[in-house]
Amino acid sequence: MHNFEYYAPTKVVFGRNTESETGKLIKELNCQKVLVHYGGGSVVRSGLLDRVYGALDAEGIPYISLGGVVPNPRLSKVREGISLARQEGVDFILAVGGGSVIDSAKAIGYGMANEGDVWDFYARKRTASACLPIGAVLTIAAAGSEMSNSSVITNEAGWIKRGYSSNYCRCRFAVLNPELTCTLPDYQTQSGCVDIMMHTLERYLNHGTNMEMTDGISEALLRTVIKSARTLRDDPENYEARAEVMWASSLSHNGLTGCGTDGGDFASHQLEHELSGMFDVIHGAGLAAIWGSWARYVYRARPDRFASLAVKVLMIPEKSSAEETALAGIEAMEDFYRSIGMPTSLRELGIEPTKEQILELAEKCSFGNTRTIGIVKKLGREDMAEIYRMAIG
Amino acid sequence: MHNFEYYAPTKVVFGRNTESETGKLIKELNCQKVLVHYGGGSVVRSGLLDRVYGALDAEGIPYISLGGVVPNPRLSKVREGISLARQEGVDFILAVGGGSVIDSAKAIGYGMANEGDVWDFYARKRTASACLPIGAVLTIAAAGSEMSNSSVITNEAGWIKRGYSSNYCRCRFAVLNPELTCTLPDYQTQSGCVDIMMHTLERYLNHGTNMEMTDGISEALLRTVIKSARTLRDDPENYEARAEVMWASSLSHNGLTGCGTDGGDFASHQLEHELSGMFDVIHGAGLAAIWGSWARYVYRARPDRFASLAVKVLMIPEKSSAEETALAGIEAMEDFYRSIGMPTSLRELGIEPTKEQILELAEKCSFGNTRTIGIVKKLGREDMAEIYRMAIG
Repeated sequence: MHNFEYYAPTKVVFGRNTESETGKLIKELNCQKVLVHYGGGSVVRSGLLDRVYGALDAEGIPYISLGGVVPNPRLSKVREGISLARQEGVDFILAVGGGSVIDSAKAIGYGMANEGDVWDFYARKRTASACLPIGAVLTIAAAGSEMSNSSVITNEAGWIKRGYSSNYCRCRFAVLNPELTCTLPDYQTQSGCVDIMMHTLERYLNHGTNMEMTDGISEALLRTVIKSARTLRDDPENYEARAEVMWASSLSHNGLTGCGTDGGDFASHQLEHELSGMFDVIHGAGLAAIWGSWARYVYRARPDRFASLAVKVLMIPEKSSAEETALAGIEAMEDFYRSIGMPTSLRELGIEPTKEQILELAEKCSFGNTRTIGIVKKLGREDMAEIYRMAIG
Repeated sequence: MHNFEYYAPTKVVFGRNTESETGKLIKELNCQKVLVHYGGGSVVRSGLLDRVYGALDAEGIPYISLGGVVPNPRLSKVREGISLARQEGVDFILAVGGGSVIDSAKAIGYGMANEGDVWDFYARKRTASACLPIGAVLTIAAAGSEMSNSSVITNEAGWIKRGYSSNYCRCRFAVLNPELTCTLPDYQTQSGCVDIMMHTLERYLNHGTNMEMTDGISEALLRTVIKSARTLRDDPENYEARAEVMWASSLSHNGLTGCGTDGGDFASHQLEHELSGMFDVIHGAGLAAIWGSWARYVYRARPDRFASLAVKVLMIPEKSSAEETALAGIEAMEDFYRSIGMPTSLRELGIEPTKEQILELAEKCSFGNTRTIGIVKKLGREDMAEIYRMAIG
């Protein structure tokens, strides 16, 4: 068991109609002017944005708005937000949307609270020393950004997708109303379920010895999301299942499922970041498409952990060796992904990278062959290329 | 599933030697003068207090000290702390100890940050509007006060033990080094394990429908503590088991195991508060002594929840009815308590209240017959007296 730090200070306000509390939550923080940040038209059409404005009006909180955040949120929008927020004297950013909108809000927050170019943080040139306070009204359960310390932005110059993590950007509050996710397209709901599971899987499949407490929480979370994803496939408006998934989204990426472990692998995430940077696919679907190939490439390094996943989460009876159990678990996970309409190969994801594109993906993912990724098994540029090749399907 | 709020902002720094980070953690909070608050001589003898002072000295942080907190911490010590801290211009309280020391620190914090008599909050005459910032270096895994919003104080005038809860008193940080608990007497270790389990049981055994995510976390926590308590009975210095128990202590009472439920029963806690107020017994042992009688008195109101506990935590095969399974679970829990040297009756706890004392306990616990306690089954004064009687053994 490793020493660890756990810090998840976000106040969660969970349940039906909780968006009506947004104004009060901001008022408690003594903020003067809010930038309401959002994505496409769905929050407008659903009336959510109007309800949020109403909650701000009720507390007499002035605000301006900036919409247009797209999935795999863009640096150009972040720069637009920083410029607007500076000009308007904004001191709080309210993200109304999913992980992309929250990540964009975090990046704007970094840009507002630090000198110089905000991309420097994502390019790992320097570290931030502050972030404007952020709050979130969540509309998609997936990225876990509402409680996490991370933010991922895509720089259109080169379509480079990079994450930056620090405690400064943790949301002050997260309003989680599961009802808001009931009308999502199935593909997005299920991509979200994959993303949630992957945040825990990345931490569960590691190289160290874990805490049993953490393993138990992780296994409960994975079982709950699998069960709820199946329920939502057949009954998309099931409130209880929506709620389980939404709460799992926050718990999966707020640090809880990593306590005492050796830090989380995150190779699948990094491999997928390059895919969605280049092809603009939905993150969760991209993860489902790449995970099986990654797992087959690395499982022999820790067959016991993969076997635990098989037995305790996927309910596979133990085979004659940990390797066999592990492999049966990987197959069962892919079967599950397919059963909820998720791809398990790049072809099923709708992309077919050329040989040159695979080399480019691996080149980018290895930062020009200067870094390895992963903990279960350290992966260099050639390993990455091989996993992308295996994943074509 | 119920709407809920979850807020656990305490920064946890967990693992070996983490007390050396105490100075840095306070420095980050820009505090000027610290009151180091502690209990008896064990933190002096073990050298822990000197190591903490060293960590403060290393950051140039001025401090004063106040020791002498006893289990079931007293209002007189709280008043002494408030007076000393005011006189010395203290703006941060560092609790070095277990739940009693942290609770005493919280009460001093309330007294410092609010006008008037601090007992008013515990007597429910008014609510606090602030609390001085608190940090904790934990030496006993039990009460969960290091991450909870609660504090329990005993007023020697009438030996009345009362709790007060608010988010203001949540610790800014909690230093959790499992090594510090390795030398605890067995009885205290196991009382701690009971207290930890009870914080989750109080929330798990309720009247509503739960979240599966919350149930899964609670069951994992209970199984982990049961297993670790058995390990520590045979091998008290087992670091891994100490760590599991210490982390479970914080998670069990920070709100996580109550998310989406109807709020937690807490009748056993309230019944025990009167016992330890009157007889000064160790809280966890008192809980073990009263729980079985409470459970037998109320389980028919929600046999399904008690049956879940039996099957998923205590590994009892299902019987022909939920009632039978529930009852077998209650017996198994008592067997477990006895197996780790914990009492399951007041006699085993070493007290034998007279008829008059039982009426007095019930009178106090019902606030003079003006309140009921419990959610699984609402309990009035006569119910309380009956449970105390059943518990004599």
